[in-house]
Amino acid sequence: MLTKAELQRLRSLREKKHREELGRFVVEGEKVTAELLAAYYPFEEIYVTSSGRDDIERLLAAIPDRPSTPRPPVIEITDEEMARASHFPTPSRVFAVGRIHRDPLAPDALNEGLTLALDGVQDPGNVGTLLRIADWFGLSRVVLSLDCADLFHQKVINASMGSFARVSVHTADLSLALADAKVPVLGCDLIGGDVHALPSLHDAVIVIGSEGSGLSPAVKSRVTSFVTIPRYGRAESLNAAIAAAIVCDNLRRSSAGGGSVPGF
Amino acid sequence: MLTKAELQRLRSLREKKHREELGRFVVEGEKVTAELLAAYYPFEEIYVTSSGRDDIERLLAAIPDRPSTPRPPVIEITDEEMARASHFPTPSRVFAVGRIHRDPLAPDALNEGLTLALDGVQDPGNVGTLLRIADWFGLSRVVLSLDCADLFHQKVINASMGSFARVSVHTADLSLALADAKVPVLGCDLIGGDVHALPSLHDAVIVIGSEGSGLSPAVKSRVTSFVTIPRYGRAESLNAAIAAAIVCDNLRRSSAGGGSVPGF
Repeated sequence: MLTKAELQRLRSLREKKHREELGRFVVEGEKVTAELLAAYYPFEEIYVTSSGRDDIERLLAAIPDRPSTPRPPVIEITDEEMARASHFPTPSRVFAVGRIHRDPLAPDALNEGLTLALDGVQDPGNVGTLLRIADWFGLSRVVLSLDCADLFHQKVINASMGSFARVSVHTADLSLALADAKVPVLGCDLIGGDVHALPSLHDAVIVIGSEGSGLSPAVKSRVTSFVTIPRYGRAESLNAAIAAAIVCDNLRRSSAGGGSVPGF
Repeated sequence: MLTKAELQRLRSLREKKHREELGRFVVEGEKVTAELLAAYYPFEEIYVTSSGRDDIERLLAAIPDRPSTPRPPVIEITDEEMARASHFPTPSRVFAVGRIHRDPLAPDALNEGLTLALDGVQDPGNVGTLLRIADWFGLSRVVLSLDCADLFHQKVINASMGSFARVSVHTADLSLALADAKVPVLGCDLIGGDVHALPSLHDAVIVIGSEGSGLSPAVKSRVTSFVTIPRYGRAESLNAAIAAAIVCDNLRRSSAGGGSVPGF
């Protein structure tokens, strides 16, 4: 049984301000909790209702032990307590609490490997999808500008489909961080060089702006090459995550061999 | 002033069943209404509150006349009436009504140009984003299987960012329609040929499955080549819209010249 103060504390974590104060964040639901547990995300505690307990215990038992990641305690609470703690009108059966940990961006980090930098991407679903893309394409890291959606927003974590726990993410003053970059800084824009003509790049930063206003002037001034995705029809733009995925695919393509498609 | 029955009729259009019965659909908000008006979408009527009237009149005045598309009447209603008609908890100032029109898929249609076929994509936001992608890449048409999200769902239209009015969309029994295709039918799957090795194809069908369960068995049996997007990291999958965009980019790339990126 949880005290009123404990329930209030869990509920308060839906706001960024309180997450920062308390250094904790929350995910809710079996699916996202399972994704993060499978990636050995070190939760502090997992609250379950009686109907959710078996699923979580089964899940924890199926994950091989890893000494560096202790198993989180599983705490059973009532449906009413879950409804009070939950950040959603329809509470789920699982509510997991993690500790906020922010990796500082090392001074020379951008000079090695491929970095996806997000400049003011404020939609949490887009930020999560971009983490998933960075994970699929095996990028070295993602850097969020200070005005991006908060990494520890539940919608970011949900949309990342587990990539939240696998991708190295940093939050930084993007224009300042890019000032030290010695590698190509590719800015995705509606006017730029053809993405299909990108050379093979093992070290580069790909910068994606917000869907509404594109790249900010401060970040734009750090871009060394603008790239654009050729348009063959009439849509005004592509979604930020889609643009990022196409640039990543082209960069990876130009540095790989390419196989064949059976049937041709 | 609208009668109770009129308000009830407008409100009822939030459900597919009533949209089909009445042959009408709705969009709400200045942005989406403006996008569709700019693409000469033939609305039947536009309801506005007094605060929304000026914006819509200015918008209509800015669009050059086109004799085939008569200007829709603009009907002013009170804030209370708008709140009753609206499909959302927070009503907007503009509510536009259109007539549902479904283009049948001509028997030989799939054999000419590039078609994007959606197999059971149920998330309306994904369907709308896929229309936007088809529009960007200048595809000839989109075909929705019978179990896709309804084309006239507001979320589909909103996510399409105006492409709803520009792309030719058909709803059909997909497996049946594909049975007659004489062009390559490319199925996006996690196992298949490398999308980077696709040859130049001017006529083809690209089939995208649902995010949860992929391609259905009936549609899978019509696929002539499976294609996959090479993965370099650890994410389990890519979102359906992202996969479609990457396949489209690769198909267009292989049939185009490609320019250069200044700075390299």
